[in-house]
Amino acid sequence: MASSAHKSPFAPAKLARLPAIDGVTFATAEAGIKYKNRTDLMVAVMAPGTVAAGVLTQSKTRSAPVDHCAASLSAGGTARILVVNSGNSNAFTGAKGRQAVETTVSAAATAADCRPADVYVASTGVIGEPMDAGKFAPLLTGMAKDAKPDMFEPAARAIMTTDTYPKLVTRTVEIGATKVTINGFCKGAGMIAPDMATMLCFMFTDAAIAQPVLQRLVSAHTKTTFNCMTVDGDTSTSDTCLLFATGTAAKRGQAPVTDAADPRLAGFEAALHDMMRELAIQIAKDGEGLSKFVTFEVAGAEDWAAARRIALACANSPILKTAIAGEDPNWGRVVMAVGKSGEAADRDRLSIWFGDHIVARNGERAAEYVEKTVAEYMKGRDIVIRVDVGVGAGKATVWTCDLTHDYVSINADYRS
Amino acid sequence: MASSAHKSPFAPAKLARLPAIDGVTFATAEAGIKYKNRTDLMVAVMAPGTVAAGVLTQSKTRSAPVDHCAASLSAGGTARILVVNSGNSNAFTGAKGRQAVETTVSAAATAADCRPADVYVASTGVIGEPMDAGKFAPLLTGMAKDAKPDMFEPAARAIMTTDTYPKLVTRTVEIGATKVTINGFCKGAGMIAPDMATMLCFMFTDAAIAQPVLQRLVSAHTKTTFNCMTVDGDTSTSDTCLLFATGTAAKRGQAPVTDAADPRLAGFEAALHDMMRELAIQIAKDGEGLSKFVTFEVAGAEDWAAARRIALACANSPILKTAIAGEDPNWGRVVMAVGKSGEAADRDRLSIWFGDHIVARNGERAAEYVEKTVAEYMKGRDIVIRVDVGVGAGKATVWTCDLTHDYVSINADYRS
Repeated sequence: MASSAHKSPFAPAKLARLPAIDGVTFATAEAGIKYKNRTDLMVAVMAPGTVAAGVLTQSKTRSAPVDHCAASLSAGGTARILVVNSGNSNAFTGAKGRQAVETTVSAAATAADCRPADVYVASTGVIGEPMDAGKFAPLLTGMAKDAKPDMFEPAARAIMTTDTYPKLVTRTVEIGATKVTINGFCKGAGMIAPDMATMLCFMFTDAAIAQPVLQRLVSAHTKTTFNCMTVDGDTSTSDTCLLFATGTAAKRGQAPVTDAADPRLAGFEAALHDMMRELAIQIAKDGEGLSKFVTFEVAGAEDWAAARRIALACANSPILKTAIAGEDPNWGRVVMAVGKSGEAADRDRLSIWFGDHIVARNGERAAEYVEKTVAEYMKGRDIVIRVDVGVGAGKATVWTCDLTHDYVSINADYRS
Repeated sequence: MASSAHKSPFAPAKLARLPAIDGVTFATAEAGIKYKNRTDLMVAVMAPGTVAAGVLTQSKTRSAPVDHCAASLSAGGTARILVVNSGNSNAFTGAKGRQAVETTVSAAATAADCRPADVYVASTGVIGEPMDAGKFAPLLTGMAKDAKPDMFEPAARAIMTTDTYPKLVTRTVEIGATKVTINGFCKGAGMIAPDMATMLCFMFTDAAIAQPVLQRLVSAHTKTTFNCMTVDGDTSTSDTCLLFATGTAAKRGQAPVTDAADPRLAGFEAALHDMMRELAIQIAKDGEGLSKFVTFEVAGAEDWAAARRIALACANSPILKTAIAGEDPNWGRVVMAVGKSGEAADRDRLSIWFGDHIVARNGERAAEYVEKTVAEYMKGRDIVIRVDVGVGAGKATVWTCDLTHDYVSINADYRS
């Protein structure tokens, strides 16, 4: 891994400590898929009655593991076991890839004593290398047997590729009078651009929520969290975001939620959104080679979708991202990115702020703009760029990072 | 300028020598707009009767000079003078920007003794800095008076920004039995992505061709030349591509072409396409910081537009472009880019070649793929990547360059 030499300046000094979730246990192993001396295989075993909801990459070249998750979700979304490996994405591996998924799913179904449709699989790493599932399928039964609840951090570490830190978030909330927990972790640092889902993200809760309701929540909140985050505009073939609900909180008195309009969901939904947003931000903060975390807040667009596209045009602009890396308050490149987005914008009503400093108002440089002051602001690590495009009430926020020499180094050397 | 330290490896040892075109004269000057000790102002004076055709940026934040060219083209496309400056794009400069254009147009109309609608203006350089047209408007009358025909290279040099070499092409062809010449030059190295027109490009011919016919030719051929080229996916606010026809070949017996279906146009149209393609390739070969020139040839798509979008998704992928810079035959990233394009592609019929080496066939690594051989190919400077997406007969070619440390350096330091 190229990661250690390029550790993100946003790597947390202390990782979040995730409590156990009733009905979920984990195991990890060193299967030697590609990496040496680190875990690269993770298994989560879930109690009977668990349901899953998820969103998957919209890539037209999605991987065989993604195909399997789509089939399991379509079959009703019941879930008993999740198997994830790093080091090989098993994408674009043809018949061999489908065979590797079948081998894995079959071994996992035996390990968890469940149907193949209760199995979820995800693979991340190099694209196009045939993956030898024989390296890890035989390990699954032993892993499932030894799986333990208090293992979120090791699980998050086992699925890392160029990530420089594991990304972990926990939230506690009440449904009715019953306390439920939501834990989530994810991976991703490069080839990250939102299109329904991004990267790998696994979330777990003990809440008792019916699958269709869970699916509605994941779909809705992916839109404004993971799908508003980008590292390099490159949508992965393997993006998978899954939320598993064991329903074990029912034993502690939580009456199951079966209706999306149930008012008891409000707190859960807010906490879920907040967790997904935090996980998305953690990915942007570990963007390959980054030196700065950048937030684009677009207002005044025709609607939310237009605002998001304008913000993404900014967040994916190489020439703007390199200017930010160079600590250059080059707001002319913001103007360019707004212009190229194709969305309605009134050039002569456009206003731009870097942090609290207005740099442009009504289509030209603001009178109070002082280059030195804004250049000083650009030396910070957290950069917020706000744009009002002057045509409507649509607003959106997108999170990203700068484009540095280290991004080039990491990706020029990834396979070699 | 950051250019000298990063000279393109494709800078020609010898520049094309462009012959004079009857009815066109040039002058250049050092107006001190931003650069020191180099020309930054160019004037082309055209004979009475000259017509212009052009395509302009589709950016929603296009510059005031682009607005003026659009107005002149709409007014019938007659042309007598072209004024271009480098060092400041006069984009996003509000009322001051419009005033600078008015000052320039008014001085140019006086210099060429013509109407404002016969004036064309273009500005390239930093966005958002108010431009002081007072620095150069007073020079125009003297320049127009001293303008000389044999000045294509100095004219091309005066409009450069981060370009490391001037881009010049000439073609000679017959219309009927009359020999006519087409000369063209252009600039552009960063913030280059096609959307109707890209960058600044000026072409001149002595052919007698009616304006509507000329416009049809420029529009049609921009589509498959400049609009199939990208450096960084960032569409400029100032893109302007103009073709001026003085019509002076009529004096030598060329009966004017007034009908787009005139069979005498065939040779001219082919030569024009060829010139525009060559100019587009020269821009890609001077892409900021490049080490390799890259051609993506996509076949098997639904139609030409789908093939072009797939090729552009490849050509604008940071993670693929950095792999190419690293001489890594990382064809998995080609698969990713095809997948993210959103166009129809059959993952299981996808085939990929690097040069003459097939690396993937029918959705998986080709049996005859030898990493070492393809890695050796990647050490070359000209990289051709072919993709067949397996769903139809649509084909397109897109030209670009790799994404290197020097791109980051150039754009992190551009303003400072």
